[in-house]
Amino acid sequence: MSALAGECRIGGRGVPGGGEAFQAIDPRSGAPLAPVYRDASGAQLADACAHAAAAAEPYAAMAAAQRARFLRAIGERLLAIGEPLVARVMAETALPRPRVEGERARTIGQLQLFAALLDEGSWVDARIDTAQPARQPQPKPDLRRMLFPLGPVAVFGASNFPLAYSVAGGDTASALAAGCPVVVKAHPAHPGSSELVAQVIDAAAEQCGVPAGAFALVHGRVHAVGAQLVQHPALTAVGFTGSPQGGRALFDLCALRPTPIPVFAEMGSANPVFVLPEALAQRGAAVAAALAASSMLAVGQMCTSPGIALCLDGAPAALFVAALQAQFAGAPAGTMVHPSIADGHARAVAEVRGLAGVQPLAQGPDGGTGAVARPQLFEASAAALLQQPRLRHEIFGPAMLAVRCRHREELLAIARALDGHLTATVHGTAADLRAFADLLAILRQKAGRLICNGVPTGVEVCAAMQHGGPYPASTDARSTSVGTAAILRWVRPVCFQDVPQELLPPELHDGNPRGIWRIVDGALGRH
Amino acid sequence: MSALAGECRIGGRGVPGGGEAFQAIDPRSGAPLAPVYRDASGAQLADACAHAAAAAEPYAAMAAAQRARFLRAIGERLLAIGEPLVARVMAETALPRPRVEGERARTIGQLQLFAALLDEGSWVDARIDTAQPARQPQPKPDLRRMLFPLGPVAVFGASNFPLAYSVAGGDTASALAAGCPVVVKAHPAHPGSSELVAQVIDAAAEQCGVPAGAFALVHGRVHAVGAQLVQHPALTAVGFTGSPQGGRALFDLCALRPTPIPVFAEMGSANPVFVLPEALAQRGAAVAAALAASSMLAVGQMCTSPGIALCLDGAPAALFVAALQAQFAGAPAGTMVHPSIADGHARAVAEVRGLAGVQPLAQGPDGGTGAVARPQLFEASAAALLQQPRLRHEIFGPAMLAVRCRHREELLAIARALDGHLTATVHGTAADLRAFADLLAILRQKAGRLICNGVPTGVEVCAAMQHGGPYPASTDARSTSVGTAAILRWVRPVCFQDVPQELLPPELHDGNPRGIWRIVDGALGRH
Repeated sequence: MSALAGECRIGGRGVPGGGEAFQAIDPRSGAPLAPVYRDASGAQLADACAHAAAAAEPYAAMAAAQRARFLRAIGERLLAIGEPLVARVMAETALPRPRVEGERARTIGQLQLFAALLDEGSWVDARIDTAQPARQPQPKPDLRRMLFPLGPVAVFGASNFPLAYSVAGGDTASALAAGCPVVVKAHPAHPGSSELVAQVIDAAAEQCGVPAGAFALVHGRVHAVGAQLVQHPALTAVGFTGSPQGGRALFDLCALRPTPIPVFAEMGSANPVFVLPEALAQRGAAVAAALAASSMLAVGQMCTSPGIALCLDGAPAALFVAALQAQFAGAPAGTMVHPSIADGHARAVAEVRGLAGVQPLAQGPDGGTGAVARPQLFEASAAALLQQPRLRHEIFGPAMLAVRCRHREELLAIARALDGHLTATVHGTAADLRAFADLLAILRQKAGRLICNGVPTGVEVCAAMQHGGPYPASTDARSTSVGTAAILRWVRPVCFQDVPQELLPPELHDGNPRGIWRIVDGALGRH
Repeated sequence: MSALAGECRIGGRGVPGGGEAFQAIDPRSGAPLAPVYRDASGAQLADACAHAAAAAEPYAAMAAAQRARFLRAIGERLLAIGEPLVARVMAETALPRPRVEGERARTIGQLQLFAALLDEGSWVDARIDTAQPARQPQPKPDLRRMLFPLGPVAVFGASNFPLAYSVAGGDTASALAAGCPVVVKAHPAHPGSSELVAQVIDAAAEQCGVPAGAFALVHGRVHAVGAQLVQHPALTAVGFTGSPQGGRALFDLCALRPTPIPVFAEMGSANPVFVLPEALAQRGAAVAAALAASSMLAVGQMCTSPGIALCLDGAPAALFVAALQAQFAGAPAGTMVHPSIADGHARAVAEVRGLAGVQPLAQGPDGGTGAVARPQLFEASAAALLQQPRLRHEIFGPAMLAVRCRHREELLAIARALDGHLTATVHGTAADLRAFADLLAILRQKAGRLICNGVPTGVEVCAAMQHGGPYPASTDARSTSVGTAAILRWVRPVCFQDVPQELLPPELHDGNPRGIWRIVDGALGRH
């Protein structure tokens, strides 16, 4: 265990891929990292899905407490790997040690959170309407409904969160919690980290009596692997964190299946920030510093990274933009998680720089080799932003666009023209926020999370979190990929009519043996 | 009011359609019914959607109590139309008076149910995680999340429920309750009933201070009207009840939009019924009578109509099939809601009759003119059912397929081969159900509602109902079109981070002024 074998994990065992060979790359040096991995073959994808299909019934039937133990065991074993995991993640992504250790803690925390949700048990949304045999003109039957797992799902690891949104990350944790077998398609930027995590999931499954088919890891450097995976008839849903192009491609493939399945793609966004007049005048420089830091956090590789800053023009705006300029001009270049990601940043920066109405304001000093990205600050006119959709979309990596609007109406027009974003932020005094209540009402329709006087990076893992906004931020804004509500993407309700108690799950029994919150004849309670 | 003008309703006013002319048809006689209707033109569809978009913010901002009053006012005004509505529905659909009056009561009951849900208020799933400013290493912000309306939606009226699943039916009631403006595409089989109902919705809107754009009715006999409607950029979701072809076509169109939107299509199903050995032996004839009656209820035009009856072969099975045969042979022909629907039944019956391994067992006596359908009973071998997907799908109208399996494994193989259905039913004694627990576990994965010892027709409108099954029964099995949970298809969560109280809806205020159930720092309560 915890030695890299260069393998996929199917049916609880390591299996060398049957497809094209590839290697992880040290993004600092561009040097390939051993061992060699191979894409899963079509037969191996089918095999992983067949194992998942066979595991679906027994895994769904496991007691909630047993699934909770499984999640906790994964977390314990992740921590137990220790330095080899941290070192491999650092080597494959160039993320610094504190970030990797913090992300590991977040990953374990997510697993524990879903374990606690299972132990508490009320998430199944149990509803009971008892029979009324004497009702006229027709007797009312006994109806009992709760949420059940959809079946096997595919999860795509994200490049920018090699632990928290990859093999044992948010989607895997919530899907395993829900009772769905998971086939993870590893991100090709960090196959070694993925394999180490997959090994401990398999070990935890064995320890906890979980059927081996409930988890699989497949590698795939070429897009065809993912495209083929999501078309397997056994799959019932897909979770994805990544680029708009990748997410939309999977969404389209799944919509066109003979049996369409939902795709929960979280595709990032530009996370616009509005700095209102009083706040701009009173603390514009401080807001600029906080925004620039948030924008460049983790070399701008956060899906909630703020990419557009808007304010009303005037002397405070000039100072604000100058402060942003100073921050970006002084910020060192950073190494992105993969050369292809750094190339994408450079391409997007060149594209935006070439657009009419766009001025480069600052870029960080040149420095370093490998997958390096220099922070970039642009300014655009409001007219340019309104006319050119590209300016309203994300540049993945360290980059920000400042926009000074001539008047309030222009600011509101831009807000109305926004597509969906994961977040929208407003900086303002109490008087600002009252005066711009209409702006907040517009932004409520554009984002999954609305922030006052803070930065969008830093996504709390809790019950009240919503991480997912209107398209193109996500393909399904009704769902979140962070927080306890994420479990709801993997389930559907089933209603039982006049089914004898002993054939029902305990959550629906008379007497409420699990002690969960239920709606019984219209009243919520633990009776 | 309540006089037919042959109009669409857009912006609160009657507007003659600008497209092709058509008329309702008396399905008994085939005679056209005055007045002449016209399909909405493209410009009129855009106008209805633009009104809905303009109404979205003010309608969403209305207090829950005001929306509840609106729903109740619609119900009161529906009842107040009295005989003109009942007579028009009967004329357009050939449904008998008790059914029409019962369906009107159900429609009003649905509106009242959602009004009560709004008054109670907890459906918004409010979640609050309070701030921890002293938390290390980072302060925790204040996070408050609840459900908000998606925006304007399109609802397609169903042919088979001219009131309960049409203009003021389930989807409209739940969407208006959620706070979404609704553009209804009337079913062309009952334009007059649709117009009468639309008139009272507009009158109720005016009475209750609801923006006129929150509701519109557009006619469309040709499919292009619906296809054009769902592609309007202002729309955020679609509700549909109808044929698999129609539902899938809308689903595909909406998936291919630049901004995809969810389609909640409820497309009916064959609702398989398994009669287990002891029950078959003890009360096969009674089960046959109940099943036949359920299958032929409303001339077989229920989406939960049982279309396949399965049992193990033997002497009791022969008696069971003979009993079904007697029921179907003696059942009178019935008039379907539209000549095109009766034609569809005849085509499907001819298609099934021509399949290998299928035997016609009984058909009801010839009788009547117009859109008449004769009840049909077929028998198919288990092998035929396994080999030919057509046999596992619905024949809309009065028809049933009996299948005798040679052994338990064949029965289970058929269960496993089933696609998604709205319901699955098992008749069995307590011993039967224990002995076939594996069958129930399979059927739980195939249906939205699992029934023991009853009939699938009769869909209770309550909290525990689930009306929606895996594809192809529905395009989104996570959603229900009946019961209080139907409101959840039209909403998405929004999280507010550190937003001042006065800018939040009352559901998220400290002190819980609405007295709703909320999850506060992980604990559910009304605090």
